[in-house]
Amino acid sequence: MSVLCEKSGFKVIKQNTDSKARLGSFRSRKGEFPTPAFFPVCTQGTIKGFSSRELEEIGIQGILVNAYHLFLRPGTKVIKEAGGLHKFMGFPNTIVSDSGGYQVFSLEKLRKVTASGVEFQSFLDGRTISLSPVEVINIQLDLGADIILPLDECVKFPTAYDYAKIACQRTIDWARESRDVFKGGKGEPLFFGIVQGATYLDLREICLKKLLDIEVDGIALGGLSVGELRDSRYNIISFISDILTKENRPYLLYFMGYGKPEDILEAISLGVDMFDCVVPTRFGRTGTAFTNKGKIVVRNAPFADDYSPLDEECSCFVCKRFSRAYLRHLINAQEMTGGYLLTYHNVWWYHNFMKQIRESIQEDKFLEFKEKFLRKFLDADGG
Amino acid sequence: MSVLCEKSGFKVIKQNTDSKARLGSFRSRKGEFPTPAFFPVCTQGTIKGFSSRELEEIGIQGILVNAYHLFLRPGTKVIKEAGGLHKFMGFPNTIVSDSGGYQVFSLEKLRKVTASGVEFQSFLDGRTISLSPVEVINIQLDLGADIILPLDECVKFPTAYDYAKIACQRTIDWARESRDVFKGGKGEPLFFGIVQGATYLDLREICLKKLLDIEVDGIALGGLSVGELRDSRYNIISFISDILTKENRPYLLYFMGYGKPEDILEAISLGVDMFDCVVPTRFGRTGTAFTNKGKIVVRNAPFADDYSPLDEECSCFVCKRFSRAYLRHLINAQEMTGGYLLTYHNVWWYHNFMKQIRESIQEDKFLEFKEKFLRKFLDADGG
Repeated sequence: MSVLCEKSGFKVIKQNTDSKARLGSFRSRKGEFPTPAFFPVCTQGTIKGFSSRELEEIGIQGILVNAYHLFLRPGTKVIKEAGGLHKFMGFPNTIVSDSGGYQVFSLEKLRKVTASGVEFQSFLDGRTISLSPVEVINIQLDLGADIILPLDECVKFPTAYDYAKIACQRTIDWARESRDVFKGGKGEPLFFGIVQGATYLDLREICLKKLLDIEVDGIALGGLSVGELRDSRYNIISFISDILTKENRPYLLYFMGYGKPEDILEAISLGVDMFDCVVPTRFGRTGTAFTNKGKIVVRNAPFADDYSPLDEECSCFVCKRFSRAYLRHLINAQEMTGGYLLTYHNVWWYHNFMKQIRESIQEDKFLEFKEKFLRKFLDADGG
Repeated sequence: MSVLCEKSGFKVIKQNTDSKARLGSFRSRKGEFPTPAFFPVCTQGTIKGFSSRELEEIGIQGILVNAYHLFLRPGTKVIKEAGGLHKFMGFPNTIVSDSGGYQVFSLEKLRKVTASGVEFQSFLDGRTISLSPVEVINIQLDLGADIILPLDECVKFPTAYDYAKIACQRTIDWARESRDVFKGGKGEPLFFGIVQGATYLDLREICLKKLLDIEVDGIALGGLSVGELRDSRYNIISFISDILTKENRPYLLYFMGYGKPEDILEAISLGVDMFDCVVPTRFGRTGTAFTNKGKIVVRNAPFADDYSPLDEECSCFVCKRFSRAYLRHLINAQEMTGGYLLTYHNVWWYHNFMKQIRESIQEDKFLEFKEKFLRKFLDADGG
């Protein structure tokens, strides 16, 4: 099975027979990457703890940055004049920039939403900033992102149907305005649409179909994992991926801001192709490491004289060089090196985790892998 | 000219003709390193900001650790059971451990000094700890350090002659007791003596001669750079190096805790062979970078859109990959990556600085190098 979509460069290579998991390949102007894919988050233009040199070493093919944060600091002018974000931060592969919608809406007290955009106060200096959907796109074009997302309205859970409908319509209108800013021709960035609609399937369907009408290059799931029941979330994902598979071309399905290992596996089984999340980096710098036998809180006392590596099965330099006892010492002594090393291990571990997932789909053994992994990972989970 | 001292492995390779600067080679049980040498400080068993992997990459041949800090946390038991500090932190080259004397005496309110040792309160939990000179040596043996220093009494400036004499005698007595703990045979660590005596040359001379009597493997300068006049300091260094050159074997002269570039050059011209200092690492993580054209405070506004590297002449990966504008952004956005990258550059820069110094001595052009370097470095110095 091989369906190629020329424009967006998304290709489904292998469809799992007993779930909706699929192996694919996505092409941006910065190269191809295999899916399911996980992109670490570089909120302010870096992973917290290390640089693009280490990203390259691990083999990271894509990252997510926050347009909202970079717009505030150092500002788009500085990055544009540097030759774009790739050059500024020394990362040559695919960069996704989010619109800042989630950031604006999660700072609820600071915002005013109108049909023409959002108004909020800078978290840095308190000044009032207004941004229209078109300005949000122009910021991302200035940054030089390869995959661009429009401003959307993310509602909290629960939200009454009437307001969810208004927010959903606003999200559609803004996507349409955004799509008109650039055509997405050769060498231009790609444009993904964000599906909103809260927990209402009819709104989700309307939103998705309107996005397909304006020729988006991929579909992002928005407004999920905000407090709704797990089953409700899975139902929505499945509902959306079902509609997409009926289209006459494949669409990459991207779950934004989602990424615990167990959640990734479940979402992939429902047809999700791509993720970004702060989990590996935030957990790392605060002292928690991922291992195939579950998460470990490195500062805990039992590791004081544990001279084994974080994960016996891991081949990253941290596991090859350092013991849990040393890493615990660094974390306890508040040495930033501890945060660096745990973050490095976690990003490496996630990279390898995704690779194993893809291999299992390739061999049509995804559900077997999922079950086996979770038994080992969750049974021993200390987190 | 080549005088080899079998025991300590110190060899003078080239003596500068118009100053006391000299090129040498020192051998510890972990290998040889060229002198003049600069050892970065790993207070708690790591450089603040990166790991031993990066030390190896830069080519660092020796580091200083603080026995006092490691004794308190994680404790010598954990490090001894790990197989020693080299294995614990993944650093295979020479490790010098200081006795903690300076730390104890700089926390003046917390200590009681008697002939049998010191008593102080742990800065971590306030508990009272007593350490004898012998215990201090045993801690360093447990850590597995390659060059060991005895407990000494470092007096403040100014100190009256009578008290300086008592402290000096105590330092001598403690050195003698320490020297008796281990013999320094093959495969054992080396033992350096610390010369105290405040600003009194007669006390300095007595102290030095007594240390030579107990067969130390090298001489460390203690109780300097504590507030005395620069000329007084230079006079003491020169006085000591003069005595040492009259001995029938060469002694490595080590200036502890000293290390601004301009100070290193001056001290080398007076016969100093080795330094350790927190300057490159502390400056780095707080946002100041060393360049051949002086220090630069990276957070300053003029660097906001400066797309040149930290130092045009530097070949470290930070200078090859990142601009001042990017690094300024990281520092301003309080990203720990900023501290990591600046520290890396500074340690690399120091490493290269020492290499240039050694080359200039090799070519008998040390004073020329010194003058040329300082003109460029100090004229533009922003620090």
